[in-house]
Amino acid sequence: MKTCAALVFPGFQTLDLNGPIEMLGDHDVGSVEIKIVAETTDPVPSYHGTRMAVDRTLADGSDYDLVLIPGGDSAPLNPRNEAINDWIVAASARAEYVMAVCTGTVLLATTGLLDGRRATTNKKDYVATVHHGPKVTWVPQARWVEDGKFFTSSGVSAGMDMSLAVMARLFGEDAAEAIAVGAEYEWHKDPNWDPFAKMAGLV
Amino acid sequence: MKTCAALVFPGFQTLDLNGPIEMLGDHDVGSVEIKIVAETTDPVPSYHGTRMAVDRTLADGSDYDLVLIPGGDSAPLNPRNEAINDWIVAASARAEYVMAVCTGTVLLATTGLLDGRRATTNKKDYVATVHHGPKVTWVPQARWVEDGKFFTSSGVSAGMDMSLAVMARLFGEDAAEAIAVGAEYEWHKDPNWDPFAKMAGLV
Repeated sequence: MKTCAALVFPGFQTLDLNGPIEMLGDHDVGSVEIKIVAETTDPVPSYHGTRMAVDRTLADGSDYDLVLIPGGDSAPLNPRNEAINDWIVAASARAEYVMAVCTGTVLLATTGLLDGRRATTNKKDYVATVHHGPKVTWVPQARWVEDGKFFTSSGVSAGMDMSLAVMARLFGEDAAEAIAVGAEYEWHKDPNWDPFAKMAGLV
Repeated sequence: MKTCAALVFPGFQTLDLNGPIEMLGDHDVGSVEIKIVAETTDPVPSYHGTRMAVDRTLADGSDYDLVLIPGGDSAPLNPRNEAINDWIVAASARAEYVMAVCTGTVLLATTGLLDGRRATTNKKDYVATVHHGPKVTWVPQARWVEDGKFFTSSGVSAGMDMSLAVMARLFGEDAAEAIAVGAEYEWHKDPNWDPFAKMAGLV
């Protein structure tokens, strides 16, 4: 049994959070228990207005095997939030893998944890956001990038492909494949598959 | 502005609900306001243990332009729930489009609203569940099926493709394409694309 903390903050992107939860939390194949973590116990509204209930606060101080950081238009603003910054740093230090999706990668970058590492992010917002992580080696064309314990993905739906890669690492390739088929999801297994980089004029 | 009621019940599948919310609720392109509807105002746990906050109860009686019914292992059991059955019948009568994902299609079928209509559902659970809708013309190989106001999709991730088809109907093909690209999602536009039917031995 692995545990995963999924951070939420007002304006988080729905699929950035819930796509990975779907792929990580399968009971039949792998076994990852997911806890929603936020500043307070109040339900947290997504970009789409729907609200997630909170399981634990940032101050709780629990250890987790996995950390998941979604993006959203508000994500690059969160570095100004010291409580979120400090939680990411502390939880990541103790985690086996740290995952960030879309502009959640920018939030992760601003903690300094990606300094000197390779990472990718949302393609539409790439030019407008990568300056938040000036010491990161940003990769313009990648579905996801793995560097050490850090997995960073391209925009929104890319978090599902990255999460399946993490599940393959934890429980084996067959287990990840079974999760994808069970969800009737066409898993993009190649981390270099990224037609959206070209559409965004990055390559 | 369109409104969409998204039904939740204990054990709903995370991506069945949130994949469509991501595709339907984009503020830039289309404009659909989503409300989470459930029996009571208590947060509702998904199959994965995370909980959605509830915006309105079944008894609220509001009208909606769209209705979204997710699946989950518990969905075929819900026909025994009269409050859910009656709400689906009443909300569907007033809606422009009714969408059901995965085994949510079985829940919709048991109301009788799909009798005499074509519909599809989850492929892995197909054989075990279609008997719940004996008067439905079940389609074994389809990503989604449209019949009148009813859109039914294959398992879990298929709800995203179906929702984009509904957005194309409401706001135009270009708008739906822009949502898919914004989410860096490879939209399967062909409702007949369904490799999972073959994997499940249905064709």
